[in-house]
Amino acid sequence: MSAQGDHNHPLVSESRLRVRYAETDQMGIVYHANHFIWFEVGRVEFLRQLGFSYRDMERDDNCLIAVVDARCRYRAPAVYDDEIVIRTHIKNVRESMVHFGYELRRAGDGTLLAEGETTHIVVNSENKISAFPKKYMGALRAAMRRAAPNAENPSTGNEMGD
Amino acid sequence: MSAQGDHNHPLVSESRLRVRYAETDQMGIVYHANHFIWFEVGRVEFLRQLGFSYRDMERDDNCLIAVVDARCRYRAPAVYDDEIVIRTHIKNVRESMVHFGYELRRAGDGTLLAEGETTHIVVNSENKISAFPKKYMGALRAAMRRAAPNAENPSTGNEMGD
Amino acid sequence: MSAQGDHNHPLVSESRLRVRYAETDQMGIVYHANHFIWFEVGRVEFLRQLGFSYRDMERDDNCLIAVVDARCRYRAPAVYDDEIVIRTHIKNVRESMVHFGYELRRAGDGTLLAEGETTHIVVNSENKISAFPKKYMGALRAAMRRAAPNAENPSTGNEMGD
Amino acid sequence: MSAQGDHNHPLVSESRLRVRYAETDQMGIVYHANHFIWFEVGRVEFLRQLGFSYRDMERDDNCLIAVVDARCRYRAPAVYDDEIVIRTHIKNVRESMVHFGYELRRAGDGTLLAEGETTHIVVNSENKISAFPKKYMGALRAAMRRAAPNAENPSTGNEMGD
Repeated sequence: MSAQGDHNHPLVSESRLRVRYAETDQMGIVYHANHFIWFEVGRVEFLRQLGFSYRDMERDDNCLIAVVDARCRYRAPAVYDDEIVIRTHIKNVRESMVHFGYELRRAGDGTLLAEGETTHIVVNSENKISAFPKKYMGALRAAMRRAAPNAENPSTGNEMGD
Repeated sequence: MSAQGDHNHPLVSESRLRVRYAETDQMGIVYHANHFIWFEVGRVEFLRQLGFSYRDMERDDNCLIAVVDARCRYRAPAVYDDEIVIRTHIKNVRESMVHFGYELRRAGDGTLLAEGETTHIVVNSENKISAFPKKYMGALRAAMRRAAPNAENPSTGNEMGD
Repeated sequence: MSAQGDHNHPLVSESRLRVRYAETDQMGIVYHANHFIWFEVGRVEFLRQLGFSYRDMERDDNCLIAVVDARCRYRAPAVYDDEIVIRTHIKNVRESMVHFGYELRRAGDGTLLAEGETTHIVVNSENKISAFPKKYMGALRAAMRRAAPNAENPSTGNEMGD
Repeated sequence: MSAQGDHNHPLVSESRLRVRYAETDQMGIVYHANHFIWFEVGRVEFLRQLGFSYRDMERDDNCLIAVVDARCRYRAPAVYDDEIVIRTHIKNVRESMVHFGYELRRAGDGTLLAEGETTHIVVNSENKISAFPKKYMGALRAAMRRAAPNAENPSTGNEMGD
């Protein structure tokens, strides 16, 4: 987070969505599984901001990112018609693995609604472990360094721990 | 296949499911799009009762049934933890088309919750119009005749009308 | 579509969304129940364009619109990452009932993906039939007249028919 | 309560469901957010096996369990029409908190598909932190002790850690 040459601030992509009625439950708040769908929306927009389309990654490069671990900590309820800001960054990336972090906030007042992480492995369309094509790897590594300069430092590896 | 001995009454398959919390919305009832998912559950169980697996139809016979029309009339709200009975029958079937009818009832008291129909065309995995393989066609036709002896009578063609 | 004073063109609200990965199914297209969720997104944006928040309608005016009939005709598949345009208009409105029409198009090339209708009754939070408060009624009627000058003409009433 | 006669083995409830077409995505496998919905199915069946209805807990005892943390590790893909066994147990319970563990297996061959945990706090219908009524607390504590005799031992507290 210090001086980083031409990348003065962390790369965190932002995307927005509005809570749908279908996403609420009878508690009157958003059902908790939907947050993982929103993380995915954030992930795809993150890639788009790097210049990539996940649709093309799958179709043209036979490069799919399968979820192997997903976690969400719920801080405050999201409610119907809230506008949600999804902030997505890369926590770690390796040849065959990428680890994203997310933050969900209510756009109106900035309330933190949830935080989460997902870990993915790269697979091909036959579901065999594969690796990121070079063009993605370079951009993802750069994005990670900009998001958290010490991200490959072992001390950041325990983000799933209590 | 007309004289059917023990098949004298309509073929209506029944399947059951329990309303999930995720399926409710903030009105405290089941969100209306879920009924179409339940119709699909009924459709698949209907086929299973005929001796077919829709999974195998897709995978082994390259025979997919794509929805072209879907409708639901909501009679009473389904609520969380209700046990739902889905009654499915065939309204019509042709080489490349099949038309299902559904009824959703609360298991506890038999209350009619919803009625609906879906129309499907047969396509292959390239999304091109195709036709039912013979083994399916025969069974579906027989099921339709048992469900409604006059199903091919023109007067039954207006089930979508008001 | 005749002379309409200051309302020279039909009131059709447009909203946009991007297809989520979660909305696809193993056919590689959007699962058909999601179209009804998108219709709801269109409905809410339609009301917002009239100056109303459905959230406030429910919370402040104890005015809920429960779905009693929903139908969708599928014209072409929507696929992952498509940007979808939802065009929503009012087909009919009465004291305790409102009838919306929808059109889904792919933003990129304008392809018609689906058309549909939903019919709703006005209920209060105890699920008893109620009526639109005056402020909504006036605006909805005006919107309907602008959408389709002859909407109350019987010939437009059979949109659910085959 | 350790020597428990007929309660000699851990209390793990089992429930079953069949993968719906709606739950698949274009990778041809179950979309990962659905696992959290299945965990909820398991949780509710777990309570039912203890003699409680979560519906009644909410409605009659004003006792809601809000998710504060949810995690899933994906071991193998679930596919359309698989029959899934959900094994649910209690990892920990306190006055205002309960922590569930889950295992998802394919019924056919026993393959482990996913493991997960959710942590919940007890709230009332105004979303204020509350506590389990005594009748639930006693049964939950007993279930936890039967599930894992040392569950309150600190060494089991790091189940979220890598």
